[in-house]
Amino acid sequence: MPTEPSRELETFENPHPDRDYEIRFEIPEFTCLCPKTGQPDFATLHIRYVPDRRCVELKSLKLYMWSFREVGTFHEAVTNQILDDLVKALHPRKMVVQSDFYVRGGIRTVVEAKYES
Amino acid sequence: MPTEPSRELETFENPHPDRDYEIRFEIPEFTCLCPKTGQPDFATLHIRYVPDRRCVELKSLKLYMWSFREVGTFHEAVTNQILDDLVKALHPRKMVVQSDFYVRGGIRTVVEAKYES
Amino acid sequence: MPTEPSRELETFENPHPDRDYEIRFEIPEFTCLCPKTGQPDFATLHIRYVPDRRCVELKSLKLYMWSFREVGTFHEAVTNQILDDLVKALHPRKMVVQSDFYVRGGIRTVVEAKYES
Amino acid sequence: MPTEPSRELETFENPHPDRDYEIRFEIPEFTCLCPKTGQPDFATLHIRYVPDRRCVELKSLKLYMWSFREVGTFHEAVTNQILDDLVKALHPRKMVVQSDFYVRGGIRTVVEAKYES
Amino acid sequence: MPTEPSRELETFENPHPDRDYEIRFEIPEFTCLCPKTGQPDFATLHIRYVPDRRCVELKSLKLYMWSFREVGTFHEAVTNQILDDLVKALHPRKMVVQSDFYVRGGIRTVVEAKYES
Amino acid sequence: MPTEPSRELETFENPHPDRDYEIRFEIPEFTCLCPKTGQPDFATLHIRYVPDRRCVELKSLKLYMWSFREVGTFHEAVTNQILDDLVKALHPRKMVVQSDFYVRGGIRTVVEAKYES
Amino acid sequence: MPTEPSRELETFENPHPDRDYEIRFEIPEFTCLCPKTGQPDFATLHIRYVPDRRCVELKSLKLYMWSFREVGTFHEAVTNQILDDLVKALHPRKMVVQSDFYVRGGIRTVVEAKYES
Amino acid sequence: MPTEPSRELETFENPHPDRDYEIRFEIPEFTCLCPKTGQPDFATLHIRYVPDRRCVELKSLKLYMWSFREVGTFHEAVTNQILDDLVKALHPRKMVVQSDFYVRGGIRTVVEAKYES
Amino acid sequence: MPTEPSRELETFENPHPDRDYEIRFEIPEFTCLCPKTGQPDFATLHIRYVPDRRCVELKSLKLYMWSFREVGTFHEAVTNQILDDLVKALHPRKMVVQSDFYVRGGIRTVVEAKYES
Amino acid sequence: MPTEPSRELETFENPHPDRDYEIRFEIPEFTCLCPKTGQPDFATLHIRYVPDRRCVELKSLKLYMWSFREVGTFHEAVTNQILDDLVKALHPRKMVVQSDFYVRGGIRTVVEAKYES
Repeated sequence: MPTEPSRELETFENPHPDRDYEIRFEIPEFTCLCPKTGQPDFATLHIRYVPDRRCVELKSLKLYMWSFREVGTFHEAVTNQILDDLVKALHPRKMVVQSDFYVRGGIRTVVEAKYES
Repeated sequence: MPTEPSRELETFENPHPDRDYEIRFEIPEFTCLCPKTGQPDFATLHIRYVPDRRCVELKSLKLYMWSFREVGTFHEAVTNQILDDLVKALHPRKMVVQSDFYVRGGIRTVVEAKYES
Repeated sequence: MPTEPSRELETFENPHPDRDYEIRFEIPEFTCLCPKTGQPDFATLHIRYVPDRRCVELKSLKLYMWSFREVGTFHEAVTNQILDDLVKALHPRKMVVQSDFYVRGGIRTVVEAKYES
Repeated sequence: MPTEPSRELETFENPHPDRDYEIRFEIPEFTCLCPKTGQPDFATLHIRYVPDRRCVELKSLKLYMWSFREVGTFHEAVTNQILDDLVKALHPRKMVVQSDFYVRGGIRTVVEAKYES
Repeated sequence: MPTEPSRELETFENPHPDRDYEIRFEIPEFTCLCPKTGQPDFATLHIRYVPDRRCVELKSLKLYMWSFREVGTFHEAVTNQILDDLVKALHPRKMVVQSDFYVRGGIRTVVEAKYES
Repeated sequence: MPTEPSRELETFENPHPDRDYEIRFEIPEFTCLCPKTGQPDFATLHIRYVPDRRCVELKSLKLYMWSFREVGTFHEAVTNQILDDLVKALHPRKMVVQSDFYVRGGIRTVVEAKYES
Repeated sequence: MPTEPSRELETFENPHPDRDYEIRFEIPEFTCLCPKTGQPDFATLHIRYVPDRRCVELKSLKLYMWSFREVGTFHEAVTNQILDDLVKALHPRKMVVQSDFYVRGGIRTVVEAKYES
Repeated sequence: MPTEPSRELETFENPHPDRDYEIRFEIPEFTCLCPKTGQPDFATLHIRYVPDRRCVELKSLKLYMWSFREVGTFHEAVTNQILDDLVKALHPRKMVVQSDFYVRGGIRTVVEAKYES
Repeated sequence: MPTEPSRELETFENPHPDRDYEIRFEIPEFTCLCPKTGQPDFATLHIRYVPDRRCVELKSLKLYMWSFREVGTFHEAVTNQILDDLVKALHPRKMVVQSDFYVRGGIRTVVEAKYES
Repeated sequence: MPTEPSRELETFENPHPDRDYEIRFEIPEFTCLCPKTGQPDFATLHIRYVPDRRCVELKSLKLYMWSFREVGTFHEAVTNQILDDLVKALHPRKMVVQSDFYVRGGIRTVVEAKYES
């Protein structure tokens, strides 16, 4: 049965909460829409975090990324929103979200936002 | 005023129809849906052709690519369809369409179809 | 429900049998065992073929590759066997199987076998 | 209607002023003139900044870069001027402008200037 | 006579215990199973440590890595377990274990755990 | 005294007219204007030819390339025009001109035209 | 028990003698001596062949390569000798031996010799 | 009229003396002579500095580099001399000179010297 | 005792004259002078040939390359001259000389000349 | 007259003892023997140091590296020994020796040892 895009981020218990360790994701399949023109934008997302009690489940992360497919949002706003959503779901010790957007108007844009508890 | 996805391919008159020359496009922003699961697929398209009387207009090519965003289609089918649509619109002397799809199930897939008049 | 390794290759109908076009797979997740020592070997497989009436289904190809995980087989033998199995299942117009094995004894080995109908 | 080069930098409200985050641009389409010989120079510009209240709008940044096309200016001067113009328009918390000029006289030149509020 | 996978890590005496120096391993041949689906996962492991009295013997490290071939374990858990096992066997002054897993669901995952005595 | 852009291509006598040999130029500093919007386009030019009696002088080639800086012209047209101008000035035995234009509308375009005497 | 360098090339029966397929080896660990100065030379060897009835066994190939460690021989001579030795042992349908020697006197040298039955 | 090699370094007034900014040069065309054998040595030079009141003029830097063409000097000595000459001419706030010499006797040598006012 | 640049190319007897095999040299240390301005030019030379009775000796090839250090010559002329000199000394079955000159006036130039007996 | 491997490291007077500067060597031609099996091991050595009164002479460094060709020694031991020998000969202000060994048992090993006076 087909899955659907979802804004819900599932989590599981951190197997080693006594140690500070880092988890990194590279997601080259992010797309959203330009809020001005409605045209698609494409980015590679890089996420890294030090988990506290919860880790993000990989499949729900994929569906969460998919959920932006029809959303109109600026580069700066969506990067900060993804950080906010992940921080809210995971309460990590540290987290960095970086979005690397494909060329528009001859310019490639990267936005990077950090959270530290 | 925002543009919208469109299956119409606009063309313009080949400025040098007396010479066989090649035009190549690299389009890293192609996305469609998996017809089985409804989940997004991503590909980089490589198109090259020798024009006869008509060349494809760049902006309409962009909108054409965008038109697959909500379409469910297999890798093999969509690559052949793009070739068919471009051949129909341009009647080129030669054309090659190659789609390089991102990893699914641990496998990266490339499909390449050719036309010769 | 978990899937299991399988030697069965599922196929589907070629959507464009009237045209010679090429399908390529890159599979960096192949592993089998050395028939002499029982130790694991690792390879990246590159497959490309021109389909006739049938195309190989991606998920069954993944499970087929998985089925070699506990099999003891030499580099030369397994590459030819994969070609034989795929040719038997698909009756392609052309096919090439290339296995690029990781270093053993200071030597990297690549085996490439071709079929033409 | 065609746009024209413009020294005006448009800005929009920072969607997350409460957080220090970084925005980076890579602009491989910068060209100006050598003030001694009048011949064209070419550079790739790298800009990164931490916004305060305002972010720079992408299209106006493109037109701003275009405005140097007919301007005679030295590598060192133009890099500092771009930093000054951007700082004046954005009042960022931090900013770095780096220009990577193509070879002249067998020498490749990079100039990097920083601002911190 | 063929060797077999083994959880035992053999060690030898550090030839220069009076000096802090670093040993690094790159192991592109790691595979285990997904605990949910039973399907194989693949990773490249990067290990680096400052030995105290004991160094890990290379062949036993290879057999240890092989011992995960039939084990179902999550990315986060297995990385921490390898660090725990190596720390227990070697009592190093410092150690870092990084596992770089191949793409699943369009996402590449890296887990990095550190130990300091 | 500063030089100026010039459509004149100076040539010198081929020092080895009795032998077919190839001369190749890579010119990453080409810029012209989009005839629709007036905005700058950027390309890297690759030229290669087998000279007959005349070779193109390097400095005049540079000034010739510079002469397109204020010219509005399509990718397909300008590539063929450069080939025509060079063929007219040099009467080479063979020549290929390839222009590799920077991304517009998410698409990178390459045009390649050939001449054979 | 330690192995020793050996000029003997062991072979095994080709598992698919009915098919022309190619086997390639990359051997970055070749060293011999300069016959003039006695100083060590280093090369990466690339071998590829189409087997007839026999394939070369990997471990004996390693020991064979090792056997040149104390041999004084010119680049041109040793490359041809390796081809001769392998052809004599395997009677392949085709074979290519390429040796890529590290810089001497500011010059990198590659020698490539071919055999066809 | 042809220019000649020159040990004179011309300077111009720093357009932004109130700001610490960095200028970097990459010069792949450096050659001098080995003082022992008289044979040519080749290096790529990397220079970076923070100007105070004066910046080095690009053409005079090129002629300065050329002036070493017939000079016999060791790698260590020439790198320090270039730093000394540039510091004397520019009185920079900071400067680094790095010379990356091509392979001699199987060894590639890099020398890096720094100055801080 | 130091060697000196020399236009003499020493040769030695081809150890395998009965076989067509190829020898390739990559020489990144070529420099000559511009005949117009007297300024130094730099190139990487690529030479490959199929020897007949004689092979070129490596050290004399190095000294031969060195002999162009004070010679004023155009790119096209020097490439053809090197081919002529080598053909005269070796009477090879085939030879290709390619010179890849560093950027002048924003243009990188490659000249390639071939000989076939 | 041919040179021979030698454990003697010749030195020369540091031309700039009043300045802290760094000298780096990359040596891709290191080989020794495995003390267990007697088989050859291969490594690229990276050495960098800040000289005090003496610099190491390049040719003697080459002969020193050559002296390990017939020596059986573990990766960890030989790296520390080279550091000890160089420190004893040069009394540098700082030194780092890194050995990057080629794959054994599917594992690439790097050992890095540091000295600070």
